[in-house]
Amino acid sequence: MTDRSARRSFLPERADQVTVRRTNVAVTLRSLRDAGPRSRARLAEDTGLNKTTISSVIAELAERGLVATRGVDRAGAAGRPGVVVEVDGRHVYGIGIELNVDYIAVLALDLRGSVLFERRLPIDVPRLGPGRTLDEITTMVNEAIGVADRQGGTDPVGITVAIPGLVETNPGVLIFAPNLGWRDFRLVSELSRRLGNPSYRIRMDNDANLSAIGEWAFGVAAGTADLVYLTGEVGVGAGVVVDGQLLRGAEGFGGEVGHMPLEPGGQVCGCGRRGCWETMVGLGALLRLAASPRDDVRDPSLDLEERLNEIVRRAEANDSRTLSALEQIGAGLGVGASILINLFNPKVLVLGGYFARVGPYILEPMVAELQSRVIAPGMGGCRVELSQLGFTAAVRGGAQVALEPVLDDPTTVRPPRRKGASGGVA
Amino acid sequence: MTDRSARRSFLPERADQVTVRRTNVAVTLRSLRDAGPRSRARLAEDTGLNKTTISSVIAELAERGLVATRGVDRAGAAGRPGVVVEVDGRHVYGIGIELNVDYIAVLALDLRGSVLFERRLPIDVPRLGPGRTLDEITTMVNEAIGVADRQGGTDPVGITVAIPGLVETNPGVLIFAPNLGWRDFRLVSELSRRLGNPSYRIRMDNDANLSAIGEWAFGVAAGTADLVYLTGEVGVGAGVVVDGQLLRGAEGFGGEVGHMPLEPGGQVCGCGRRGCWETMVGLGALLRLAASPRDDVRDPSLDLEERLNEIVRRAEANDSRTLSALEQIGAGLGVGASILINLFNPKVLVLGGYFARVGPYILEPMVAELQSRVIAPGMGGCRVELSQLGFTAAVRGGAQVALEPVLDDPTTVRPPRRKGASGGVA
Repeated sequence: MTDRSARRSFLPERADQVTVRRTNVAVTLRSLRDAGPRSRARLAEDTGLNKTTISSVIAELAERGLVATRGVDRAGAAGRPGVVVEVDGRHVYGIGIELNVDYIAVLALDLRGSVLFERRLPIDVPRLGPGRTLDEITTMVNEAIGVADRQGGTDPVGITVAIPGLVETNPGVLIFAPNLGWRDFRLVSELSRRLGNPSYRIRMDNDANLSAIGEWAFGVAAGTADLVYLTGEVGVGAGVVVDGQLLRGAEGFGGEVGHMPLEPGGQVCGCGRRGCWETMVGLGALLRLAASPRDDVRDPSLDLEERLNEIVRRAEANDSRTLSALEQIGAGLGVGASILINLFNPKVLVLGGYFARVGPYILEPMVAELQSRVIAPGMGGCRVELSQLGFTAAVRGGAQVALEPVLDDPTTVRPPRRKGASGGVA
Repeated sequence: MTDRSARRSFLPERADQVTVRRTNVAVTLRSLRDAGPRSRARLAEDTGLNKTTISSVIAELAERGLVATRGVDRAGAAGRPGVVVEVDGRHVYGIGIELNVDYIAVLALDLRGSVLFERRLPIDVPRLGPGRTLDEITTMVNEAIGVADRQGGTDPVGITVAIPGLVETNPGVLIFAPNLGWRDFRLVSELSRRLGNPSYRIRMDNDANLSAIGEWAFGVAAGTADLVYLTGEVGVGAGVVVDGQLLRGAEGFGGEVGHMPLEPGGQVCGCGRRGCWETMVGLGALLRLAASPRDDVRDPSLDLEERLNEIVRRAEANDSRTLSALEQIGAGLGVGASILINLFNPKVLVLGGYFARVGPYILEPMVAELQSRVIAPGMGGCRVELSQLGFTAAVRGGAQVALEPVLDDPTTVRPPRRKGASGGVA
């Protein structure tokens, strides 16, 4: 038996001066990032630090290029204009990579939340295999670093790779990705080798987990403590935030929803069984229901967004097969999502991936199923939202995770290179 | 937008001397409860408090009757025997009540974890209705208080009522219990009125939540940070512990699993739909599969444990209908539990209620389904255990929750009544 009470000991950790300073700097930067630009006086109030400390912390952050100050007119206030502090850090950026069945995507995000680089490449990943797919990713990452470099950055702070499958985050092994057909692949060390074993950290996580982090940080439900994110691609993934924490489970395998057995005797799934939820509502189901086998929208070598645009065009033109397919997808989504809402009682369920693109056509049948199946009255207070991040949720979440070490300890960042007196950016 | 960073401020709360003292007393009592009897020196080590503080804290706890000391032989150690401190508190007790479809149960538990009173009454709750059911409960609670009183207790510290349904814990309203047929019933205030509006706190929670707390505190998986508890009664309930915290969801309606739609076109459920998980594996399914309508094991007016004993006797005698029914239940349990293990990736799944009683006959088909359906290799490290608490998990968990205020602040407990010089207990 372990002594659980020991963890509850009230004794504070011993904090030496360096730790206290580092914590003050981190708290101030996070506060600016999360709650926006403010005056020094407001910041002192919000962080509980005194004004002298705030001034010296801001000076340190400014020296490292992580915050900037600007004057603002204070409407109706007499006297000189106020000065607000805001996050800068355009030379500090993280990279998110998404590896999916029919595309790879790379996005570089700076500390201000600005996108420095974004690219998506439609390719047939299962056919290409791990080696050549990583070669493609390496080319794209080097391209991103080149672009960031021209904008004043140096190396990224970190890289996070999103995978549609089970991941052992430490040391970064892909355990099983049914829809890629990959198993037990040491992706992180392979990618690191291709990038010349850089000193920044490369990590890997499940795509839906990273998308949920993206939604939590930037999306329609930013900061919601109880949130379920559902993404529709070839598979169906979920990222679940419970009481402000990402649900990972004892060994990091939590959040797997695509293989709920909801249709006994249904279609064959990538996992080998029949009737899994993703055979009912994944991208394959939509395409199968909406189009004949030789229809271009079912050609995986064409860009997915283009094919989805075509499906939406047909729905807008009242094509009955398309509309009926979307209605069936919506109802199937409601059946499975009712399980998640009954279990997690979230405040918001966010639909991402292709679900978000066809949202207006699937929401009504989905919510009808939810209303009849969720046991708590009024769906337990849960609302359904469409992601505004589209297919970028995972790469944004990944880039955000890559930036975390800077937010945890801003004193690790070196002052930016100076580019002559003009300070101009290419 | 809220300032999430403000909560991360490193500044410790101001702790005045009274608060510090109270915290020290609580930490010490919890440590003794969770990790067992120990010497003062060991306690000082485990809590991080100095020996002088520990001695004065122990003196205070002893004065309030919450700890006692005893001498022990130290095997192989030279010198005088050691003195260990242990939890006492036989005058401090909480009451757990469980209200189910075909029984009500009451259990009183003292601070040492000893059961002072335990009773289960088989009755037909849906037929009796809320008013008369509460009358029965009131009688049983008064009986429990009488017994505890003769053992040196006074009033309970608190009462917690377990309900098979949705509960609004504050202010204690039963929202919907499909299998009781009750809706929107202010159970806590009604019970409080019948008990003469006592000063101790009466609370209410979902039965599976309280059972999960019971398992966490006393059961086969005590202290496991990621745990799913499944209980089989007329309905099927789950209590989920995620990273050491009970999953409640945004409005407290989380953990509902009985109505997962796993068998389209299956049996009609108490909720009005067909093919919910509990129609496949609830007590009704077992009885329907194992026995003809006029068989005594299907008579709800007979004691449930007796009926289950009869089913186990038949299984032991190799009755083929019984064995096949149990195998079907086991397989159905595996189908639904695979969803929970894929979602939560727990360390342990505990089977309670009637599942535990027939465990040896359902485990094998259940685990076979899990092994083929859980996506993570090796079931993600999850093992399946049978509850040892039987049908008492919910009342034990409830009594434990009722005792929490004492563990949070032991200084609220008044010293016990003295019963003459002998200090004897009836």
